Amino acid sequence: MTNVLFAAPDKDWAEYEQVLPEAISAAGIDANIIRLHDTFDPSEIDYIVYAPTSPVKDFTPFTNCKAVLNLWAGVEAIIGNETLTQPLTRMVDFGLTEGMVEWCVGHTLRHHLGMDADIKRTDTTWDFRSPPLARDRKVTVLGLGELGRAVATALRRLNFDVIGWSRTPKALKKVRCLSGEAGLRVALESAEILILLLPLTGETENILNAENLAQLPEGAVVINPGRGPLIDDDALLAALNSGRVGHATLDVFRVEPLPSDHPYWAHPNVTVTPHLASDTRAPSAATVVS
Amino acid sequence: MTNVLFAAPDKDWAEYEQVLPEAISAAGIDANIIRLHDTFDPSEIDYIVYAPTSPVKDFTPFTNCKAVLNLWAGVEAIIGNETLTQPLTRMVDFGLTEGMVEWCVGHTLRHHLGMDADIKRTDTTWDFRSPPLARDRKVTVLGLGELGRAVATALRRLNFDVIGWSRTPKALKKVRCLSGEAGLRVALESAEILILLLPLTGETENILNAENLAQLPEGAVVINPGRGPLIDDDALLAALNSGRVGHATLDVFRVEPLPSDHPYWAHPNVTVTPHLASDTRAPSAATVVS
Repeated sequence: MTNVLFAAPDKDWAEYEQVLPEAISAAGIDANIIRLHDTFDPSEIDYIVYAPTSPVKDFTPFTNCKAVLNLWAGVEAIIGNETLTQPLTRMVDFGLTEGMVEWCVGHTLRHHLGMDADIKRTDTTWDFRSPPLARDRKVTVLGLGELGRAVATALRRLNFDVIGWSRTPKALKKVRCLSGEAGLRVALESAEILILLLPLTGETENILNAENLAQLPEGAVVINPGRGPLIDDDALLAALNSGRVGHATLDVFRVEPLPSDHPYWAHPNVTVTPHLASDTRAPSAATVVS
Repeated sequence: MTNVLFAAPDKDWAEYEQVLPEAISAAGIDANIIRLHDTFDPSEIDYIVYAPTSPVKDFTPFTNCKAVLNLWAGVEAIIGNETLTQPLTRMVDFGLTEGMVEWCVGHTLRHHLGMDADIKRTDTTWDFRSPPLARDRKVTVLGLGELGRAVATALRRLNFDVIGWSRTPKALKKVRCLSGEAGLRVALESAEILILLLPLTGETENILNAENLAQLPEGAVVINPGRGPLIDDDALLAALNSGRVGHATLDVFRVEPLPSDHPYWAHPNVTVTPHLASDTRAPSAATVVS
C-alpha cells in the first residue's frame, strides 16, 4: 500500500475526489489517500499531491517521500522552496479529461464549421457558406462516464444541441439524456455528429455496426476517441462509401499504430489521429519538471 | 420610431436585454422596445420578437405588424398557428456573437491541437505527439467589445490561459485584462495564439505591423476574424516567411473576396476562410423562413 498525501486545502477536494483515486489506480498504484486533516506520520508518506495553495510549506518531515506531484500548471509557488529535496513532478494525469474535452470539442467544431474545405483548399475559390449555429447542430455523445459527461457538458456550453446516451439511465444538467435500446435509436437518428465515449464491454463492442449506422442521418459525422472495437470497421467503411456517414474522425483502432495497409488511411472521408485524444496524458508516472 | 414587441416571457429578458437593442440598432432601426407587461396598442406594433415560449398565441390584433422574428431555432411552436398572417422570419442577428465564438474557439482548438497535420496527411505516418493542455496554452484576444469578451470568456471556460487587451482598461471575470501601450507589449509577448477582434479605427488600423509582430513569440498563430485593415499584410507575410508567425488564419481582408493573385492564397502557412466568422449572421433583415 502506497501512502499518497493530498496536500491541498479541503475546499479543493471536491474537484479531485473522483479523479485522483481513478488516476492513481489507473497508474497501477494501490494507494491509500491521506488528507491534511487526517492523522499521519510524515515519514510514511510515499507521494505528495501538491497544489500551489497548499498550507504545506516545509517538506523536511517527509523523509521517505519519493516525489511531489504538482496539481496545477503553476510551479512558481513551490519551485523556490528550499526544503524541497524530493523530485517535483507534474501531475499530468489530471489532464486526461481536459485533453479529451479539448480534442472532442475541437473536432466537433471542425466538422460543424466545415473547416477542412478551408484547410485543404489549394485553389483561390472564395467558398462562402453559412454554417448553422451550434444551437442548431445536433450532437450525440454515446457514453456518460467521466469523459462523456465532461464532453457533453462542454459542448452544451457552446450551445450545441446535445443528446447523451448511456446503457443505464443517467442524468446530466442541461443535456437530454437517453438510455437503453429505444433511447439509442433516438440518439442515433438525430446525430449529425456522433461521439463515441463508451467503455469497451461485451455489450458495447461493435455497437456501431451496420444496423446502428443505418439509423444515422445521411452524411453524419462519426468521431471516435473512445475505443477502437466500438466500431465494426467494415460496416463503417461501407457507410462511408454509401454516404450514410459523411466523415469519420478516428483516434483509436483495434490495432495501433493503425497498420499502413488499413483502408482508413487512404479513405478521403476519414481522418486518422494517432491516439491523441484519450491517452496522451494518461496516468504515467508524471513528468519531472524540476 | 419603430415599435418592437419583445413577446417572450419576462424570465428570458435577461438573456436579451443587451443584445436585442444592439442588434436592432446595428440593423439601422431606431426602435422602441416594448415588453409584454407594458401597456401597448397591438395595432401599433411594427415587429414582434417571438420566442417559442411566448404566451402570445393570437396574432390577429397585430394588424400593422410587418414581421414576426423568431428568437430561437424551433419554429414548430409558431409555424402551425393559423392566426399568423405576418411573415415569420428567423432572428438570425442574435447569432452574430455565437457564430463568432464558435469560429474563434474552433480555430483556436484547431491550432492548439495541431489538427492540420492529421487533416492534410496523405501518408500513413502514425505521427504521435502530445499537445499541451489548454491551461498551458497562452491565448491573447485583442479587443474586448461584445465579441472579444464573448470569445475570451468561452476560451477561458475551456481552460485556455487567456489575456484580453483593450485600448482603455476593461475588466472581465477570470480573464487577465491589460490595456494601453505597455499592456499591449505584454499581451503580444505571451501570445502563442493571437485573436484580433478590435474595431477598426485610426488607432487600430495596422496594429499588427512589423514592430508589433516582432513582439510575438516565435511561431505564434495569428487569427483574424475582426477587420482586414488591422493587419499590415506585407509585415505579416514577412513574419510568416521568417517563422516569427507560424500560421495565420484569416477571415477578413482589405478587399473581399480576396483577389486570386493575393499571396495569402498560396502561402503554405496561411488559411483563408471566406468571411465566415464575423458577418455571416450579421444584422440583416433576418431570413424569411415561412
